[in-house]
Amino acid sequence: SRVISLAVIPGDGIGPEVVTEGLKVLDAVTDGGDVAFEKTSFSLGAARYLETGDTLTDDDLAAISSHDAILLGAVGGTPGDPRLAGANIERGLLLKLRFSLDHYVNLRPSVLHPGVSSPLADPGPIDFVVVREGTEGPYVGNGGSIRQGTVHEVANEVSVNTAYGVERVVRHAFGVASARPRKHLTLVHKTNVLVFAGGIWKRVVDEVAAEFPDVTVDYLHVDAATIFLVTNPARFDVIVTDNLFGDILTDLAAAISGGIGLAASGNINPDGRFPSMFEPVHGSAPDIAGKGIADPTAAILSVALLLDHLGLRDAAARVQAAVAADIAERGEASRSTSEIGTAISDRIRAH
Amino acid sequence: SRVISLAVIPGDGIGPEVVTEGLKVLDAVTDGGDVAFEKTSFSLGAARYLETGDTLTDDDLAAISSHDAILLGAVGGTPGDPRLAGANIERGLLLKLRFSLDHYVNLRPSVLHPGVSSPLADPGPIDFVVVREGTEGPYVGNGGSIRQGTVHEVANEVSVNTAYGVERVVRHAFGVASARPRKHLTLVHKTNVLVFAGGIWKRVVDEVAAEFPDVTVDYLHVDAATIFLVTNPARFDVIVTDNLFGDILTDLAAAISGGIGLAASGNINPDGRFPSMFEPVHGSAPDIAGKGIADPTAAILSVALLLDHLGLRDAAARVQAAVAADIAERGEASRSTSEIGTAISDRIRAH
Ligand SMILES: CC(C)[C@H](C(=O)O)[C@@H](O)C(=O)O
Ligand SMILES: CC(C)[C@H](C(=O)O)[C@@H](O)C(=O)O
Repeated sequence: SRVISLAVIPGDGIGPEVVTEGLKVLDAVTDGGDVAFEKTSFSLGAARYLETGDTLTDDDLAAISSHDAILLGAVGGTPGDPRLAGANIERGLLLKLRFSLDHYVNLRPSVLHPGVSSPLADPGPIDFVVVREGTEGPYVGNGGSIRQGTVHEVANEVSVNTAYGVERVVRHAFGVASARPRKHLTLVHKTNVLVFAGGIWKRVVDEVAAEFPDVTVDYLHVDAATIFLVTNPARFDVIVTDNLFGDILTDLAAAISGGIGLAASGNINPDGRFPSMFEPVHGSAPDIAGKGIADPTAAILSVALLLDHLGLRDAAARVQAAVAADIAERGEASRSTSEIGTAISDRIRAH
Repeated sequence: SRVISLAVIPGDGIGPEVVTEGLKVLDAVTDGGDVAFEKTSFSLGAARYLETGDTLTDDDLAAISSHDAILLGAVGGTPGDPRLAGANIERGLLLKLRFSLDHYVNLRPSVLHPGVSSPLADPGPIDFVVVREGTEGPYVGNGGSIRQGTVHEVANEVSVNTAYGVERVVRHAFGVASARPRKHLTLVHKTNVLVFAGGIWKRVVDEVAAEFPDVTVDYLHVDAATIFLVTNPARFDVIVTDNLFGDILTDLAAAISGGIGLAASGNINPDGRFPSMFEPVHGSAPDIAGKGIADPTAAILSVALLLDHLGLRDAAARVQAAVAADIAERGEASRSTSEIGTAISDRIRAH
């Protein structure tokens, strides 16, 4: 029997609440099987920072790295909390994990499940995945400012794009596209304005395309892509894009396909040198934390992505099917966080 | 009687078609009044580049600069045209005009007119304006690459933000907000990741807010802003944001309020040192050029913005009212570009 070590980072706000349900479902789907998850919980996030002043120590990072995979709830304190003014939990923890663990593929599927209402009047079928680059672009933290706080301040931020970094994520995206029925890849960037950053993305996509003759390719400027996401999302199959454009497009993609309460993501290191990390796209939502009303579906679907990544295809499919069935029968009745997790677990155990 | 010199840049694709209708409406609304527009047409764009190899010469720029205002249709050739591979009409012409003429306010109103269908199921009232910075940010063209075309390429792109540049547009945005009934301003950025660029925007907004105690202010990350644009656009009154985020948000804003066929914009130099430039948000749309089917409404609404900017408030209001009435009665019947322009002109003359 296979033992998989899982680092669990419940985090802040609703993070712990939704992670509890994710683990409930993980237990249900592995119960009685020959794969066991050995979980270690890491107390990280705004709460930990307020207690100890640490965001992510080298020891934390080393300990987390030694696991096979990571499940993360959400991190981040209440916006505007003065005690957090000196901290940047996002950069110091979430992005530090993504960068240190070389999560160069940020995988974000968008599916409009039957029974889910979209803010779009006529959404049509929505079933695409965004392959967002995770270790480069405007997210590198290569910025600075001079004369800070004065009328002469200049603040710069550098987007760094390397052939190495772009090529590996683009090749991965072609692989994803090639394995899907429609086999279509859309590069999104802003090549007409960001001529250098856009130029390398365009060139690499053109080059890698030659290795995937079965995949059709097109290009959209990021501004035009947002239009199509609300007027014709069915046109998308796989989108590949940089870190910042991917951030923007995936929130919009989540919104049109039922909200961030349903949006799962995987921060993946396809090489397997580092553990991959799975997390709902939503944040810590301090405003609704502790009330037991957060929707744990995104966390549960992130568990499905985690299982799939670990090669446990059957278990992943069972979780996905149970979620789809649960969503289809949801109706308007409001259930608590744990009621949803239990309902999905029960479905899995019943099959 | 006042004579206003207007530089007209019809441009490429549908540009000339929609500009013709914009000018038709301008003639209708000024006819018999005491303001006369003296128009000079400038042949610029992909067509001019293919003929002469010029994008925008110093002489062109000087000649255009000497006018009181500019009306632009759209510029840009057919994507992928190999003869344009060496040119960048967007950077070399459109952005060069915006930067050279110090158009630091890019004003983009979004209104869902009665009778217009939105892709949103339940759009609610949409009436907001995006004040997009026009001369800084990731648009400055401060990028470069080394080892271009090799596996060792590194391509950078620098977002440059100055206190001078941010403050003037932020102050303008507060002025816009203060003059509107709801008096609400939303800063959109990505302060948690782009800490330097985001930091200066946040600081300046906080500082200028003290001068406008009547304006309420909030902040959204750009990814969250896209969610609200499709789930609750009524929450927005005035958005202030940088050049790139503004580009993205205004296409999405146009999409939810009836499409880019209706979206007008002004590239404004509030100091009056340089002529301001008014243009529809849509591009040259080579695919439908020459067919007489482009919707000239965005160009006509850009004429309204132009009139307003020139202090001709009454004429601006008449154009806006005629457009609103035309839109309200449009129905499904498809009219040609010139039929729409004529219908709106006729309405103006009849009142
Ligand atoms: C919290 C933030 C740093 C993060 C990002 O920008 O990547 C989030 O928005 C996301 O999309 O996962
Ligand atoms: C054509 C392009 C350079 C331009 C921009 O990015 O500003 C356009 O998208 C716009 O929004 O006016």
